[in-house]
This record gives sequence, structure tokens and C-alpha cells, in this order.
Amino acid sequence: MKLDDMILVSVDDHVIEPPTVFDHHMPERWAVRAPRLVFDANSGMQKWTWEGGTTSTPFICAVVTLPPKEWGYDPTTLAEMRPGCWDVDERVRDMNANGILASMCFPSFAGMSGNFFAGCKDRELAHVALQAYNDWHIDEWAASHPGRFIPLPLSPLWSPAVAAQEVRRVARKGAKAITFSEAPESFGYPSIHTGAWDPFFAACCDEGVVVAIHIASSDMQATVLNNTAGAPIEVVSTLPCWNALPCAANLLWSKSLVKYPDLKIALSEGGTSWIPGFLDRMERQFHVQKWVGSDLGGLTPTEMFRKHFLACFICDPSGLLLRDRIGIDNIAYEVDYPHSDCTFPGSPEELWEHLTSAQCSDQEIAKITHENAAKFFGVDLFAHVDRRDATVGALRARAGDVDLRVRSKAEYRQHYAATYGAIA
Amino acid sequence: MKLDDMILVSVDDHVIEPPTVFDHHMPERWAVRAPRLVFDANSGMQKWTWEGGTTSTPFICAVVTLPPKEWGYDPTTLAEMRPGCWDVDERVRDMNANGILASMCFPSFAGMSGNFFAGCKDRELAHVALQAYNDWHIDEWAASHPGRFIPLPLSPLWSPAVAAQEVRRVARKGAKAITFSEAPESFGYPSIHTGAWDPFFAACCDEGVVVAIHIASSDMQATVLNNTAGAPIEVVSTLPCWNALPCAANLLWSKSLVKYPDLKIALSEGGTSWIPGFLDRMERQFHVQKWVGSDLGGLTPTEMFRKHFLACFICDPSGLLLRDRIGIDNIAYEVDYPHSDCTFPGSPEELWEHLTSAQCSDQEIAKITHENAAKFFGVDLFAHVDRRDATVGALRARAGDVDLRVRSKAEYRQHYAATYGAIA
Repeated sequence: MKLDDMILVSVDDHVIEPPTVFDHHMPERWAVRAPRLVFDANSGMQKWTWEGGTTSTPFICAVVTLPPKEWGYDPTTLAEMRPGCWDVDERVRDMNANGILASMCFPSFAGMSGNFFAGCKDRELAHVALQAYNDWHIDEWAASHPGRFIPLPLSPLWSPAVAAQEVRRVARKGAKAITFSEAPESFGYPSIHTGAWDPFFAACCDEGVVVAIHIASSDMQATVLNNTAGAPIEVVSTLPCWNALPCAANLLWSKSLVKYPDLKIALSEGGTSWIPGFLDRMERQFHVQKWVGSDLGGLTPTEMFRKHFLACFICDPSGLLLRDRIGIDNIAYEVDYPHSDCTFPGSPEELWEHLTSAQCSDQEIAKITHENAAKFFGVDLFAHVDRRDATVGALRARAGDVDLRVRSKAEYRQHYAATYGAIA
Repeated sequence: MKLDDMILVSVDDHVIEPPTVFDHHMPERWAVRAPRLVFDANSGMQKWTWEGGTTSTPFICAVVTLPPKEWGYDPTTLAEMRPGCWDVDERVRDMNANGILASMCFPSFAGMSGNFFAGCKDRELAHVALQAYNDWHIDEWAASHPGRFIPLPLSPLWSPAVAAQEVRRVARKGAKAITFSEAPESFGYPSIHTGAWDPFFAACCDEGVVVAIHIASSDMQATVLNNTAGAPIEVVSTLPCWNALPCAANLLWSKSLVKYPDLKIALSEGGTSWIPGFLDRMERQFHVQKWVGSDLGGLTPTEMFRKHFLACFICDPSGLLLRDRIGIDNIAYEVDYPHSDCTFPGSPEELWEHLTSAQCSDQEIAKITHENAAKFFGVDLFAHVDRRDATVGALRARAGDVDLRVRSKAEYRQHYAATYGAIA
């Protein structure tokens, strides 16, 4: 296998939501109360505003191909970003240029677990708006280019019963995954240990919907590792990926996996390098602390992990070296476009270097790059795209005109004005 | 090299403090206000009691050679434990039986960072009592068997200035290390990012004293990874070792290591398997997020880590496999006697299996088992014990009469009554 022969699925990218999210999917009587993307001339920022509160695009989350010196905390509008952040046609062109066949896109303003909607006290409005968001994501964003996206709707965090309903609703629309929080109790909702989420987990199992848990999908102050007072930005930006570890530990020992043997959990942006030591430790706990009477339904912790979890990495050379201890069927790849950690437009080159350094076989490369993701999410990658057209080389051959230069915010603003017009 | 040829230093064990800690080291006018180990007939427990509060031996922390079904939350007195937990002569006999040349012992009732003393509102009393504890630890516990212990006094957490004084005082008494907290701000004291601890760090550098940070040396509710509401005991007992990771990240990016290039930090019971991925991530942060302007004084994060930190493991096969990515000079060994995780009395066998499975060379084995620890703590292991008498084989040859059977609490109570008399 050569670099150009790889077929890449990125199981964790992000959509910066365009202003049209709620235009076509709110029932008429609710339309006037939908969240709106409002430009505030004073701050120079666009913010999503509604009865549930106000939020902007998260920090350093739309910086792809901006010069690093312009990352920082500057005001943000869609005009200052690479258009592929929010324009789905441009996104697919960027995916072609980066050799990415298919992408699963987590939200931005809506929060990694959709918690923006949970902020609305009027639960009926919250529910209608979240459903509109999900319909936009499935029917507009993901459906616009068949075979290029794995749709990822959001779950209503404020109610396990409503979340279960939403799982069944989006499954009928073809969804294969739904977001959840790494620690719902951090927002004041029941923890997974209460059993309150059983209806949600049951619905996910019944419908074959993967629970997708992204790092930072909790109230970070309550759960994140980097809660040291006054910690510098390096601490804040390097630590959250390890949130996946306590999340996995809590799920593994929660009894939910015994109760719902078909439950599948994708850990997004958590990396993989912590998993070998995590499994060592879980196994040791299981055997040394037998007095606790742990019961994983006849499985060992490692068997339980491999049965239920998919982990993914952006850049994780140490994880690749110990892929046998993780489980070769449990590792997937992500680009993290358009966040600061993303590898665009050189993702295939960086990935290839690590795969070959770790001496991965062709079969292992196929599993890590796309087969594991396709199997875990139950997606036929080649239903809409011929396998010969799905490789890095084939996709890139169609993207010769994509501008990959680093461009300043000022240049992007000019490009936006010329292409899309004035910011409303 | 054969198993019996190994020379083993355990850089993390625990003393269950005997009732005599404060008998000979409190100034006379303070003696009546010293903490006392009091037997409460109602609860059947012995508790350390004084003006600063009351505490007992922590849960599953004195269970070595008890049958696992007797671990649990049962009432605890010294009589129900293996005598090596608290009787230093018995401890050394147990070290011989387990092939351990030298041991560094963290406290028990005093808290991993000595926070029991910080609980006393009368700071003068707190200071006097902490000094008495340190004098007992250095002059009685560690000095009783020259060459067999690396003394580990406690730092007064309530004042960086007093802590700096104590560093200089215990250094004059021969101490090579002192405890600190993984997150002092969790107790309401300044975080390391405030600069408040600079006098303490400066004193440690001046005196060549290692800062020894044990997992769970913080207010666990505030910082530990396992803060999920209602988490089962498996979560609570498996996760805390990863507290070492955010602790290391905070220190690495704190500027303190640039300011104090001689500062040395021992991470105790944190394991090593997280370090390769941690260094990958720190390096990526350093290079991808250049806009932050991180400055590690000209070093890379990996160089900084290897210069300042010593990590250790009880059982960490994945860490050993990636020892080159950790740094072969930065790995030490620990037994964790007498906690539930400890490998006594089969530590050499378990360690040997992992070292040989990972195909460690004789030189690597020497570094991991004792050379790294001796160098990091500045200890001459063979000043009091001839090298030929220091090996696993030689030590065990002197311990043929040590009773290694699993014994019930009832059996230990009988043994205690016959050997030491009634519990006061």
C-alpha cells in the first residue's frame, strides 16, 4: 500500500454552523423563537442568540489555514474563517484536497454534547430547536454530498426519556450515532451510575445508534483535568483529551455495558495512547481487588472495552506502537478540521509517517483508516462513492483548484465579501 | 542477570504510624497537645486524635497478607494488621523476605501531603507537631536500620515560607526528599502557578531535596479524576493514579522548572504508561500551538520532563514496552507495601516477569530497579549494606523465618496480643 492508496474516514471533525441552520426546520409557530446568528458591530463578533442564552464559536476552533499568530482570542465571524468551516460544498472540496472520504462532524456553537439547547428553560422550545438542528444536520449538511458524511445528531441532555425518543426519531432518518456527554452530572443531570440514562442506552441499542462522546462534552470546570487555579493556556489546551479516560472507566464499571451488551461508544478526540495502561490497570483492579465482587458479565475489562468502544487519534505515535494492546479493531482516525489541532491539509502525510514508523501492515492500515469506523458506525462507505474514487490519491486528483495557502483573516474577509457578500 | 541478582529500591511504600510517633520529639510544653492514637471501644477503631481533628488509617491501606474477603471497610487497629505495617523491625524483615534493599515510606494518618497537620488551626502547634513527626520519621523509623530507608519528611502545606524553613531543617538532618501536594489549591492553599511556592522550590534546589508528590495528595473531591456522582468503588480505586498526569502537566508549564533548573520531582504511584502519550501531546502542543509563545528555557517538553521528573510503577507492562519513549533514566520501581495494590511478598517475581517480557537489558534492569532512584534521590545504597548483601537473593536468604502466609484479622489479633500485649 502507498500513501495515495489509503481510504480515510475522519470520525471527528467539526461544523461551524452556518446562519441557515434553523431556516427550514422549525415548525412555523416556533420559527420566530429559533436561535439566530447575530452580528454585534461593537464586539465585531457573530453570536448565536436566543431565549436560552448567547454563545460564539469556541476559541481556536476555526483556525485552519489561518497564520498561527492570528489564532488567539480575536473576534470571530464566518468571514474570518476558511469557508470550509461552515460552507458544506467548500468543506467537501477541502476533504477532497485532504484525501478524506467521509467525515463525522461534531457541533460548534451547540456544544460538544448539544448543551446549548439544554440551556433553554422552555423545554418545549429547546426540544423543537434541537430537532430542527438535527434535521438540518442530517438533511442539509450530511445529505448534501451522499457518502461523504456520517450524520451526527445531538441528544437532548435535559431528559433521558426525550433523548430516547430523539434516538428513535433520528435513527428513522438514517442516523448511526448521536452525541452524549462525558459527564452529564457536571451540568446537573443524572450521572450514568443512577440508571436514569437506561432508556437512552436502550434506544441506542435497539436502533443501532452509536453513543458519540467528545472530550470537553461536560461542564469543564466540574470535570476537566486542568482545573488548577491560574493554569497557563498550555495546560488548558493539552489536558482535556485525557477526559476520555475517566469517562471510559465510569462507563466500563457502570453496569450499563452488562445491561446493554449491544451498546457502542465512540470516544472522540481522546487519543489512544492511554488505553494500554488503562487496560493494564483495569485488569489489575479486576484481579487484585476481587473482594469488591466486580461483575462484567463474564468478560474481562479488556474484552469489555474492545466489545463496546471505538477510540480515535489525530496524532498518537505511542498509541500506534501498542496497537496490539489496545485492540486493532478499536482504533480509528480523525482530522479535527477546522480546530487548531487539525492536520489539514497534510493529514495523509502525517498519518502515513506514523503508520509506517509503527510498521503497520496493510491490513492494520485499512482497519485504522476506515474499516473500523465503517463497521462500528454501520456505514457502507462505498454505497455512493466507488472504491476506486475513494482513495487519497483519487480524491486529491479532483481538488487541484483548492487554495491551500495560509491566508490572513483580512484575506479571508475579502474573499468572503467577494463570494458571499456582507456579513448580515 | 537472574531474578536473585536484582537490587531493588521501592520508592513508594507506606508506614502505618505506630502510637509512639510523638513520644520523644514534641517539646515538653507542647507534649500534652500532641496527636494521640486513641482506641474507641464503640467503633473498634484506633484513631489519631488532637485539636486538629481525628483520622484513622485509610481504607484498604493496611491489608497486606490479609485474605481479600477481609479487606473492605472493617474497623481497623494495629492489632488487625501485619506487624510490618507499623513495627520497623518487622518491616525490615518483610523487606528482606520481599528482596527489597531500600524503601521510601509515605505517611498514612498524616495524609499523602501531610495535610493532617494543616488541619490544625493553631499554626504553632501544627508546626511543632509536624516537626516532631519528621524527627520521628528520620531519627527513629528511617535511622533504625541504616541503609534500608530513604527518609521522607512532610512539608507544612499551610505556608510556603514555613515549608522552605522545614526543607532546610530536614536537609541538615540528612533528608533527601520531602512530600508535597499534587494540587495544593484543592486544600485552599496557593496553586503552583501563583509563584507563592517559589521559596519552597528554591529551598529544595538549594538543599538538593526532591519534591515527592504522591497520588491522592490533594483534596480528592476537588481534583481527582473519579468525581462522577455515585461512581462504584472500582472507579474510585482505579483512577487516582492518573492524577500524576495533570500534576506533571501543571508543573511542566508552570515556569517553575525554568526558574528552578535544579528542581527534582518524584511522581509516586502514578505509574509510567501515560508518559509516552503525554510527551507526544506536550511536544505537539509545543510545536502546533506556537502562537502561545511557550518558553521552556530552550528545552523541549520531553527534555524538560526527563530533566526534572522521576516516575515509578508497581505493575506497568505497557510503560515498560515504551521505556525508550519515557526515558530509561526516569523510571523507578515501587512495591506500595502495605496497600491493597502491593505485590508483597512476590514483588521480585512479578517485576522480573514484566522486565523480561519487555526484553529489558541488564543495564536497563539496573537503572529501573535501583540506579535511577539512587541517583535521583542522591543516596549511596551501598554505604551501609555491602552490594553482595543487597540483592534479592541475599536479602531473602536472611528471611527464612518470616511468616508469609495469608492470615485473618483474628489470627493477627492473637499474634498481636501474644507479641505486643493489649491495644491501649
